[in-house]
Amino acid sequence: MQSTFTLPQSEIPTHWYNILADMPTPMDPPLHPGTKQPASLEDMTRIFPENIVMQEMSTERYIAIPDEVRDAYALWRPTPLIRAVRLEKLLDTPAHIYFKHEGVSPAGSHKPNSAVPQAYYNKIAGTKRLATETGAGQWGSSLAMACKFFGLECVVYQVRVSYEQKPYRKMLMNTWGATVYSSPSKNTAFGRKILAEDPKCAGSLGIAISEAIEDTVSSPNTKYALGSVLNHVCLHQTVIGQESLRQMELAGEYPDVVIGCVGGGSNFSGIAFPFVRENLTHGKKTRIVAVEPSVCASLTQGENRYDFGDTAEMTPLMKMFTLGHKFMPPSIHAGGLRYHGMAPTVSHLYKHKLIEAVAYPQTAVFEAAVQFAQAVGIVPAPESSHAVRAAIDEALAAKREGKKRVILFNLSGHGLMDMPSYEAYLSGHLNDP
Amino acid sequence: MQSTFTLPQSEIPTHWYNILADMPTPMDPPLHPGTKQPASLEDMTRIFPENIVMQEMSTERYIAIPDEVRDAYALWRPTPLIRAVRLEKLLDTPAHIYFKHEGVSPAGSHKPNSAVPQAYYNKIAGTKRLATETGAGQWGSSLAMACKFFGLECVVYQVRVSYEQKPYRKMLMNTWGATVYSSPSKNTAFGRKILAEDPKCAGSLGIAISEAIEDTVSSPNTKYALGSVLNHVCLHQTVIGQESLRQMELAGEYPDVVIGCVGGGSNFSGIAFPFVRENLTHGKKTRIVAVEPSVCASLTQGENRYDFGDTAEMTPLMKMFTLGHKFMPPSIHAGGLRYHGMAPTVSHLYKHKLIEAVAYPQTAVFEAAVQFAQAVGIVPAPESSHAVRAAIDEALAAKREGKKRVILFNLSGHGLMDMPSYEAYLSGHLNDP
Repeated sequence: MQSTFTLPQSEIPTHWYNILADMPTPMDPPLHPGTKQPASLEDMTRIFPENIVMQEMSTERYIAIPDEVRDAYALWRPTPLIRAVRLEKLLDTPAHIYFKHEGVSPAGSHKPNSAVPQAYYNKIAGTKRLATETGAGQWGSSLAMACKFFGLECVVYQVRVSYEQKPYRKMLMNTWGATVYSSPSKNTAFGRKILAEDPKCAGSLGIAISEAIEDTVSSPNTKYALGSVLNHVCLHQTVIGQESLRQMELAGEYPDVVIGCVGGGSNFSGIAFPFVRENLTHGKKTRIVAVEPSVCASLTQGENRYDFGDTAEMTPLMKMFTLGHKFMPPSIHAGGLRYHGMAPTVSHLYKHKLIEAVAYPQTAVFEAAVQFAQAVGIVPAPESSHAVRAAIDEALAAKREGKKRVILFNLSGHGLMDMPSYEAYLSGHLNDP
Repeated sequence: MQSTFTLPQSEIPTHWYNILADMPTPMDPPLHPGTKQPASLEDMTRIFPENIVMQEMSTERYIAIPDEVRDAYALWRPTPLIRAVRLEKLLDTPAHIYFKHEGVSPAGSHKPNSAVPQAYYNKIAGTKRLATETGAGQWGSSLAMACKFFGLECVVYQVRVSYEQKPYRKMLMNTWGATVYSSPSKNTAFGRKILAEDPKCAGSLGIAISEAIEDTVSSPNTKYALGSVLNHVCLHQTVIGQESLRQMELAGEYPDVVIGCVGGGSNFSGIAFPFVRENLTHGKKTRIVAVEPSVCASLTQGENRYDFGDTAEMTPLMKMFTLGHKFMPPSIHAGGLRYHGMAPTVSHLYKHKLIEAVAYPQTAVFEAAVQFAQAVGIVPAPESSHAVRAAIDEALAAKREGKKRVILFNLSGHGLMDMPSYEAYLSGHLNDP
């Protein structure tokens, strides 16, 4: 029986899909952090190259993927779409469970989908050095790899708790030639300020972003790169959903529900936006579900308002669901989801009830992760395991209803570098903070 | 430009290729460790199920792959064949460098190619529990996963130095439900004897095999599984080379040289045997190169004679190139290559000069590994990096000669769980013992 749906290199999408073209109402613009007026091109180009800022602001429906980027994508794209037949049997469900396997990239996650074009656009804009933040290390390692492809220096501020919990990703960044700091670090004024107040501070994505931006504006030939939240990042990830649409066609099915975990929103956007487009423009009725950790649940517990993207109030203000930029999330193992806000595009869709959201505690998430790993074989990253949990619950709901349900979720990354969190779960040392 | 050659699920090979059918002279039989007479079916079925022993002894050229095994293979097979274009540019070589990427399996290496059929054949033979050994943990984790697929218990004796150097693979085995002991362990009489003589013994594959066999013969419903060396294991791996032949055809080229690293010989057999067959039966003239660590170099420094497969002299005697079953290899990071002997099939081909061999020290290997990781993106396992080193040297030789050379090597696994060895290399703490 066919369970895996692959595509040849020639079917890597030629364009990214820009959901701004199909939004039901216009989105609120980012505001300058000082004047609170809409941010200008000049404001944005302090930290990003102009070609990326233009893409961030574009409302063009399809944006061509440069050949150099498609060539680099070919190393792991198109990624496989796999039907989890053994998991269906284990759950004894009439549901069909499909997942898109983004863990086959060299960095082990979906993050290179945006790291590669960001490094490429910076290269042609003349940038010599990129600064960024990373939580679990998925984004930082992806950008380190992409910078090496295009000959750029790379410096990464990694959230301290992940730096310590996930040392292998730091070593991976070093292997790809990047310089990595544990954040809060002594390398920036903001990091030193935080450390003075709380020497044991576990760090957060908000703090690490502040440090990377400070590094950017105070260093020569340096620009900043962000791995989630912003429009252009979500745009780059839409290769995931576009390939999935084609692969579901090969499988002869169409999803009733599409699921992705959300931290800043990048992998969720990637799988979801092309299906939102089908809902909006082709009368499809797929439910689209964002899954967040219950201790850092911006969609289900946050407010939709203007807020800073970082802790030090250096980024433009963005209209988004947020827990407040001073919020310090507990040290859960899904470090990539420890972010106070949510991508403005995802927030806008949620406000308009075009997507749903659900939140889970980490023990329920790891229970699903181990069940998936043992049934299917692939060990999911703690972040991706939130989507696994929701997919299993959808399959169990279908079983209770005695009805078929076609489920598609994004397996945004593998967990081979997150094994200590599995060890903690299996030995009974993992709790819900 | 096309650089990645994928195949659909339907092109997973339907048969394994058995090189015994094409050997230029008959191979010497395994001998009973006590009587020194050819081992009987009864001797072998003490530790293996009969269906596997029959396969071990078969001289049939093609052996059908059961549907259940092909279904499980579909999770990661066919694996991609990739041309390392950026590496070619970096080396400024006229050579074309292709590699088969076995690292995309859920366990991160080629080992599930044999773990899955071994678990399957044991399952249908009524085995309830499998015991095995593992070096770096690639085989142990693969068997743990395969046992979970088919509902078998799994117990793994992991060589102590790897158990300590590579803790993530132990955690991975635990996640897949296996029980893992550091070898030499207190769990067997032989382990206790070794520990009494040398409490700090780093362990070796030979010792761990002895422990797993002792566990097997002293436990109910238990059989033994080996991840390399034996004919049936090499047989299972030939899916690698068969797919590669088809993919090179898609690439429109044929390799001048085929390269694989060798410890016990399994991944090398996998990529090499189908090309040896083309040399023997279709007049092709591909050079076939086995790459070993210079501190454990059974082909280039060993003797071709009967020897035990394990340290405690419990296995049948096999005719092979060996450093002697009491040889204790230094604690290099390529734990999967720390084996005193070599697969009898590989040994037989080497004796007949149908394949070549070369050995490298580990610093030269890691230098190549980092060069590959930075140019191509994929971080190779320390074992696989031996093949990377040889491929780069072939490409540099082609450059010196100013001639094109088509190089194909097997990237038997990724190194994401071996990052401490990269850290040791990058920080200057890795030496050649």
